[in-house]
Amino acid sequence: MNYLFTNIIGTFILDDHFKIIDQITFKTVQDYLTKETSEQKLTKKHPLTKPLPPEKLALALNNFRNKKYHLEFYQKNLSLTKKAIRNSVTEDQLIIQAIANINELDKTINLLGKRLREWYSLHFPELSEKIDNHEKYAQFLLEKTRTELIKELNIDSEIMGADLDKTHLDEIKQLANQILQLRDLRYKHESYLHEVMQKYCPNILEMSGTTIGAKLIELARGLKQLAILPASTVQLLGAEKALFRHIKTGSRSPKYGVIINHPFIQNAPRDCKGKASRILADKITLCARLDYFHGEFKALEYKQDLEEKLSQTKKKQPKNVQKN
Amino acid sequence: MNYLFTNIIGTFILDDHFKIIDQITFKTVQDYLTKETSEQKLTKKHPLTKPLPPEKLALALNNFRNKKYHLEFYQKNLSLTKKAIRNSVTEDQLIIQAIANINELDKTINLLGKRLREWYSLHFPELSEKIDNHEKYAQFLLEKTRTELIKELNIDSEIMGADLDKTHLDEIKQLANQILQLRDLRYKHESYLHEVMQKYCPNILEMSGTTIGAKLIELARGLKQLAILPASTVQLLGAEKALFRHIKTGSRSPKYGVIINHPFIQNAPRDCKGKASRILADKITLCARLDYFHGEFKALEYKQDLEEKLSQTKKKQPKNVQKN
Repeated sequence: MNYLFTNIIGTFILDDHFKIIDQITFKTVQDYLTKETSEQKLTKKHPLTKPLPPEKLALALNNFRNKKYHLEFYQKNLSLTKKAIRNSVTEDQLIIQAIANINELDKTINLLGKRLREWYSLHFPELSEKIDNHEKYAQFLLEKTRTELIKELNIDSEIMGADLDKTHLDEIKQLANQILQLRDLRYKHESYLHEVMQKYCPNILEMSGTTIGAKLIELARGLKQLAILPASTVQLLGAEKALFRHIKTGSRSPKYGVIINHPFIQNAPRDCKGKASRILADKITLCARLDYFHGEFKALEYKQDLEEKLSQTKKKQPKNVQKN
Repeated sequence: MNYLFTNIIGTFILDDHFKIIDQITFKTVQDYLTKETSEQKLTKKHPLTKPLPPEKLALALNNFRNKKYHLEFYQKNLSLTKKAIRNSVTEDQLIIQAIANINELDKTINLLGKRLREWYSLHFPELSEKIDNHEKYAQFLLEKTRTELIKELNIDSEIMGADLDKTHLDEIKQLANQILQLRDLRYKHESYLHEVMQKYCPNILEMSGTTIGAKLIELARGLKQLAILPASTVQLLGAEKALFRHIKTGSRSPKYGVIINHPFIQNAPRDCKGKASRILADKITLCARLDYFHGEFKALEYKQDLEEKLSQTKKKQPKNVQKN
């Protein structure tokens, strides 16, 4: 009775004393990955061969005690691992990096925006009160002079800011310019994400939008994991801090995580927001499963469902109020 | 006997019952700021006039109880304050804002640089180990392909990164590009600071360099305050945390604050660093005083002093070692 045994070095025929009597050696890792071909060749040549039973593994491995094999084992295993790492990069990782960078850029715009306000306020402190948005502030400052802005925004012409030389103002404007470029990059990233997600997870994209969809994938650490999660967990992704506080101290439980910014929840009447987020999380979970298992595109139907349910609750609302 | 009394509304001649008998009203705040002219005119007209004694102020103010004055007081005081604020903007504020923004940009470059590494490592993880500096990393990634870099940096050609489409790589390159622009802005700010400081505080600039000088002004909150501080405080500016820890817990006292990066301290022998920082802080304090009181330019002499002292300690060093 002969045994067939394969490892990363080759495929072998062993006799009943577990000595090698025939073999095909693998030259590259690719040969190992398609080992079936070599195995079939050998079993054709030795018809009375059965696979090595697992409990005899130690005896078979005795053949490879020789030091000359060690380097080969090491190198082939290394390149096998490298290959596995190379193949593990999927759209998941790309989406996670892009949404993480959007987050980083938002932080940066905020940091530099605050500095811009403080700096330009030496020249024109009244402007900062009038414009809340950092990017709009940067744009105004770049496009118009102080005199123009005073007229346009109806600011009291007796202002508190010092008259600064062009050298100083130019320096501030360069910062403003940089902030606008960071904003542009942020929106470029967003449309890139849209493109990637359109191919990879069209249902999630349609149902939850670019940013929320990507954040959910980031928080779940991949589409597969998101598809596996129960809807109630998806509902609270991004609200972990509040959830654990609830569990620990008994404070009110959170109703929603990152999906809070979804228009469906934003537009829901105030006392239906919890219900709305439950329904939305349900649908997003369905979408994740469709996308992961390459199912049909059903997100538009689901969206319609959602809108009907929202209008129903809205209709019910006034009746309840009249009854009370 | 008549009294002369001036407030923001005008200058007045009061009789001995403190009633107004003559006056010149101020039309603008400017008239108030040059009140001496109006006062001289009135005293010429009424030769027997003396200034109102402070204890009679309440009686004089009775004349202004009428509500019609209230709005005028309010408005003129407001514009006086606005003017004061406008005039309070000096080079100090501009230097403080610029150096603070350099700090912010450094933080940002670090944040986005880390993200860039993580993102590009999906494609080429081996590069991150080879290049420590974020800006150099961004530059390499923009200028060369993976294949070129593998050759140039002698990296094992069996890499772990995935092959990414151009769409994905372009997105990463845009981030790299942004990081380089932020770096450019940082250096522009530095040469702007140099220009401002050359006029405002040439001695400090020569003695401590742009960044350290500006940081000292920022930490002291202005050149005047820096000129007033004792050298021992200047030595520790920026090491407040370590200093208070020393006071509170008795841990080792800090030897230097932001001046630690000065080449004079960097080049000092290891066991002379404390002494070197004391000498350097001394000289910087002298420079701050020269600059604040518009003194001569002596920083070059001081610098020579420093270098002599440094070479003396360096010469002494080997002797001490031989003695021990």
